[in-house]
Amino acid sequence: MAKISVLGAGSWGTALSVLLCDNGHEVILWSRRKEEADELREKREHVSKLPGVRLPDGMMFTSDLDEALPDRDLLVMAVPSIAARGLARRIGPGLPKGQLIVNVAKGIEEETLLTLSEQIEEEIPQADVAVLSGPSHAEEVGRKLPTTCVIGAHHKETAEILQNIFMSPVFRVYISPDILGIELGAALKNVIALAAGTADGLGYGDNTKAALITRGITEISRLGIAMGAKADTFYGLSGIGDLIVTCASVHSRNRKAGYLIGQGKTTEQAMEEVKMVVEGVYSAKAAIGLAEKYQVELPIISQVNKVLFQGKSPGEAVQELMLRDKKIESWDSRWEEKVN
Amino acid sequence: MAKISVLGAGSWGTALSVLLCDNGHEVILWSRRKEEADELREKREHVSKLPGVRLPDGMMFTSDLDEALPDRDLLVMAVPSIAARGLARRIGPGLPKGQLIVNVAKGIEEETLLTLSEQIEEEIPQADVAVLSGPSHAEEVGRKLPTTCVIGAHHKETAEILQNIFMSPVFRVYISPDILGIELGAALKNVIALAAGTADGLGYGDNTKAALITRGITEISRLGIAMGAKADTFYGLSGIGDLIVTCASVHSRNRKAGYLIGQGKTTEQAMEEVKMVVEGVYSAKAAIGLAEKYQVELPIISQVNKVLFQGKSPGEAVQELMLRDKKIESWDSRWEEKVN
Repeated sequence: MAKISVLGAGSWGTALSVLLCDNGHEVILWSRRKEEADELREKREHVSKLPGVRLPDGMMFTSDLDEALPDRDLLVMAVPSIAARGLARRIGPGLPKGQLIVNVAKGIEEETLLTLSEQIEEEIPQADVAVLSGPSHAEEVGRKLPTTCVIGAHHKETAEILQNIFMSPVFRVYISPDILGIELGAALKNVIALAAGTADGLGYGDNTKAALITRGITEISRLGIAMGAKADTFYGLSGIGDLIVTCASVHSRNRKAGYLIGQGKTTEQAMEEVKMVVEGVYSAKAAIGLAEKYQVELPIISQVNKVLFQGKSPGEAVQELMLRDKKIESWDSRWEEKVN
Repeated sequence: MAKISVLGAGSWGTALSVLLCDNGHEVILWSRRKEEADELREKREHVSKLPGVRLPDGMMFTSDLDEALPDRDLLVMAVPSIAARGLARRIGPGLPKGQLIVNVAKGIEEETLLTLSEQIEEEIPQADVAVLSGPSHAEEVGRKLPTTCVIGAHHKETAEILQNIFMSPVFRVYISPDILGIELGAALKNVIALAAGTADGLGYGDNTKAALITRGITEISRLGIAMGAKADTFYGLSGIGDLIVTCASVHSRNRKAGYLIGQGKTTEQAMEEVKMVVEGVYSAKAAIGLAEKYQVELPIISQVNKVLFQGKSPGEAVQELMLRDKKIESWDSRWEEKVN
């Protein structure tokens, strides 16, 4: 049994707290807001974020970091990407050397082009920071439907400790050393989900969507490899796996914003209608920054940027993608010699 | 302009004939049945297989191989996988050395474990055999919705000739030398579609389906690499791309048969209800044959076989998949040394 605090009581933080409690660990769920922590403690349900899922009796709740932080085997960071660096800066000074932290949010900082774990490591250099990602709607994890994830860590020992903590009969955990690949795939897949949504909005079919998903993950992996990540990771649970779930979901904000843009709305109108943060819009910009830095061609993500920020028509963008130079599918192809 | 005959007037053969006609080629569409050829010529529509798609004026129809075969720059073989070897044996003797043939069907012969192009090459050794595959519902290609495919050929020159013949503003063609990888992915993806359908039938969610798709393509690629194919191909259009389309489609026979099995039907009941050939059921057996021959572990495909042919309950199969040994996501992972 491990002593764990989950920081952030959104749907994902809450679902993971339930999983960890069910796995027999001592879990404190921290919310930024006292009213939220009180409501969770009283109702044993997160009515607005994870309705219908009973919070186990043993689960504890607080809005006080002084209660949540001391003497924990593991901290799970589940705050929105935009809030992660701030929280890390706030809690860093009090944490011991080697503090185990798993970040479960996704995003790339626009100004620094750093992933979330890199930001956390800047703020809490004494911590051992790992990540968890994969095709995992929180509602389904809450309902105990079979789910798989991947945990990325610097050291195999750390990865195995975390695998043992999270794994259960309904939550299968793979481990990987490729933290960068996991985080890049998780953040950039939202840009491809935007493109796939746009194709739906234009009235295109499954063929077009599958093409965008497949070639989309190919270009993300090309960027990732240039940055030092591993190709396999992008074709794994945190890359293509998560992308499949996102593009299939009618609830995905990124897919929905893309759909509206495909139907003729402007980026501003689409973001207003979706109401919540459309992560892919920010990641699209960050991806262009990374592509320039690492000199990699990203045809789909470039077109997404032109549609989002330069008023290009989505139909024209698709046309240009279809008519690019004739290409070989995989760059290191080896052909047989023609002998006649 | 090329002189092309398309052999097989199913939905895919017909849709490709329209594409090739639109691209300015001289196209003869051959049907095994005279009535079908006559009806197509008269109605300029394939009412039962590709309704709503007008067959261009220039397109020719025949049920006579003596009209379809002589002096063609390209033969497109679009007959069901079960009929491919027989047709190849029949037409082989009359074809010239170097005859260009593109096969567009999918499947592995259960007894020989050969792919379709390997069977065709056995029967027509003087031909230059290539393949075309990718996420491409025929109805959507018929409606001219943006679609991508990959053409595999032994020689780059052949691949480029075919790319020029097929490519259009709505049909983007990539090329590859990995014929084996393209054909394996195309055939084995149907087994994973069966598994994904079964998960749907069991009432599981998007997380489970994405896990089966992602880990499914991982194990197919493991088998393919052992056989000499390239990993990239399985993560390309003919592998994961086609799998995504199949698993998203409510029309897929494989997905539907799986769904019925997940709901408690036997394999026989499911196949009867679907009425058409469920390719994945045969490919599942072939895959096990290949796994034994090449000594590769296929956890998902093994469970599919146990459910299909040994009466194992699908729920139990999923449980076993979730609780297998704790694994590393990618086999050649490199970890940092722990320095304390």
